[in-house]
Amino acid sequence: MASISPLAPKGGFPDLPVIEGVEFASVEAGVRYSGRTDVMLARLCAGTSMAGVFTKSATRAAPVLDCQAKLGSSTSGGAAIIVNSGNANAFTGSKGVEAVAAVTEMVAKTLDVPQDRVFSSSTGVIGEALPFERITAKVSALAETLSPTRIQDAAAAIMTTDTFAKGASAQVNTDDGVINIAGIAKGSGMIAPDMATMLVYIFTDAKIAQPLLQDMLVRLTDKTFNCITVDSDTSTSDTLLLAATGKSAEITGATGPFYDALHSVMRDLAHQVVKDGEGATKFVEVRVTGADTDADAHKVGMAIANSPLVKTAVAGEDPNWGRVVMAVGKSGAKADRDLLSIRFGDVVVADKGWVSPEYDEAKAAEHMKGDDLLIGVDLGIGAGQATVWTCDLTHAYIEINADYRS
Amino acid sequence: MASISPLAPKGGFPDLPVIEGVEFASVEAGVRYSGRTDVMLARLCAGTSMAGVFTKSATRAAPVLDCQAKLGSSTSGGAAIIVNSGNANAFTGSKGVEAVAAVTEMVAKTLDVPQDRVFSSSTGVIGEALPFERITAKVSALAETLSPTRIQDAAAAIMTTDTFAKGASAQVNTDDGVINIAGIAKGSGMIAPDMATMLVYIFTDAKIAQPLLQDMLVRLTDKTFNCITVDSDTSTSDTLLLAATGKSAEITGATGPFYDALHSVMRDLAHQVVKDGEGATKFVEVRVTGADTDADAHKVGMAIANSPLVKTAVAGEDPNWGRVVMAVGKSGAKADRDLLSIRFGDVVVADKGWVSPEYDEAKAAEHMKGDDLLIGVDLGIGAGQATVWTCDLTHAYIEINADYRS
Repeated sequence: MASISPLAPKGGFPDLPVIEGVEFASVEAGVRYSGRTDVMLARLCAGTSMAGVFTKSATRAAPVLDCQAKLGSSTSGGAAIIVNSGNANAFTGSKGVEAVAAVTEMVAKTLDVPQDRVFSSSTGVIGEALPFERITAKVSALAETLSPTRIQDAAAAIMTTDTFAKGASAQVNTDDGVINIAGIAKGSGMIAPDMATMLVYIFTDAKIAQPLLQDMLVRLTDKTFNCITVDSDTSTSDTLLLAATGKSAEITGATGPFYDALHSVMRDLAHQVVKDGEGATKFVEVRVTGADTDADAHKVGMAIANSPLVKTAVAGEDPNWGRVVMAVGKSGAKADRDLLSIRFGDVVVADKGWVSPEYDEAKAAEHMKGDDLLIGVDLGIGAGQATVWTCDLTHAYIEINADYRS
Repeated sequence: MASISPLAPKGGFPDLPVIEGVEFASVEAGVRYSGRTDVMLARLCAGTSMAGVFTKSATRAAPVLDCQAKLGSSTSGGAAIIVNSGNANAFTGSKGVEAVAAVTEMVAKTLDVPQDRVFSSSTGVIGEALPFERITAKVSALAETLSPTRIQDAAAAIMTTDTFAKGASAQVNTDDGVINIAGIAKGSGMIAPDMATMLVYIFTDAKIAQPLLQDMLVRLTDKTFNCITVDSDTSTSDTLLLAATGKSAEITGATGPFYDALHSVMRDLAHQVVKDGEGATKFVEVRVTGADTDADAHKVGMAIANSPLVKTAVAGEDPNWGRVVMAVGKSGAKADRDLLSIRFGDVVVADKGWVSPEYDEAKAAEHMKGDDLLIGVDLGIGAGQATVWTCDLTHAYIEINADYRS
């Protein structure tokens, strides 16, 4: 077991509020691991709206395809989410489809919810048949231990190469009462070796129609989970589900305090995924301004955040701004070398295409010694901007990923 | 000084044929390094056609922009190529333009060739002013030692983080006599830390008009240098120049034995660049077939070749085909999980979307122990194909790139 990431939240797993209408359970099913829980179940009350976003991979796994097909199903019955770690049920052909059907059918029968309201995810090794009988055999036991307060156990059950369980929450005061939001996530590479994938489950007691919930989730994903990268690789199984149980106040506007609170929960979870990036010792915010468009700014940000040369420089605490110039150049975004400005933290390194006359390398190097870094890039062309987050590339990444599968 | 790459050609630098109309010299100018040569000069006879391809980076360096502007210049006078290592003269604003002008002017005067026929390249640290006086001070000494046989010394002078000098040649028999082709290259990451960039210079005594030469070079670059990757990063200074002196037989056709011979020289040099990839211990050919289009096949190949997870698996000698599936999925190319087949060497791993019934992991693992590997992917969709080359991602890459600049 790897030691806990040095970037993990200092206080441990946060206290998350109870979300009325949601209960959690977890169990040791022995899918692949032993001596730890590896399946979580969440039961959602009737009337819950479900929104989801998924990997865009062309080789996405059977549970992802199944979730996508079920998103728009009727909210009149209850709903459930079942997740296993240890096996991704990906690249498993028709066997994979059968496994999803077996697991979701058992959950539907046991909890008396429609099968098209049972959402499943699997994370772990690719290309091995999911031993689904080990999961279906435990569904009754899971159902018996469902509790509104067991969200932390659920977060632990879905971990693979993660070094800490991830949770975040927010509360929104409205005229009709307090709305609670609580979310959990797993992920420590965009995909990791065999054990991989980012999975995120967020719950709120707000009452909100499915189309509006889906719209918010998509817009906020573009500002949060689509702005993080550990290694530029993309899982076959990435899944983000958002459930709104409707037990507290109603939301009808596309923006406002609820939208902002959901944003903060999603950003917090996204940051935690990066902070648990394989081998990570530094958290890096890349802030791009002055681009022709927001899309161009995002391209530049991701080119910097994905560059192995930038990421190794960060690992070496080297304010190597030449590599940032290189990454801007290769990004494909509109850029003019002679308008480009770069800073590390508050230290202006390059200004309008050349090293700044005030540049103090010692100060920049001092900034790089921290574990929460800022790389700022201004393209000097337009008003487009974007912020993305990544971590450094260290020996530990190689160690984690070059080991022969055991 | 790093030890020589384990993938370096066993016989050392090859014997290269003399190309009539080309002479070489090299010198210690102390641009940044001491105790080694760091500037090379090539003189080309009047009538030489010059073709070139360059980095597409939006932040390309001053010498690159200067070369691009000069490609179409008249061939009536002689020509020259001057290259320094140690400083890339990149991101240096107007100072960079002045440095290029000073160096090319001095070469033009000294060799009595038109200044718009003097091509320059610089490779090394980004963002520091090129101390061009150190180069101009040595141009006379370079001119005095020009010799048709000093191509190996020229190859050595342009090295930065390279661990071996790179050369390749071919001969073509024609009815009008033998045509010779000789080329040299430097490069050991697509860009390396501060010292970086791929530079390639190829010389032939064929007589060939500039537009045809340029056309051949562009087409063959797409099959060779555009199909290699070490770390997915792109230099600000990549330069490939091809000079045809016209001293032997004439080429008028766009394909044929000369085209094939040029192809083999370019492929050989491209492979040598990968084999000197920073920290490389394995050379990997990724062969993609059955794609919707050749462009899609190239996308899939590069997604595999650039994936840190695939590259660390190769370093660990792990036939981890799940990561290949992942890379296919993220490539953006048209793919159908259930038609996908994958092999390592001759070992069929996955067939039509699931692990092959005949798959023998021990045999696949045996293939991965070699240092010349093949990853074959068939998408099962169409006739598109592409081959790309890369190396593994090892601790040494991190060591080379995470060190603070000295």
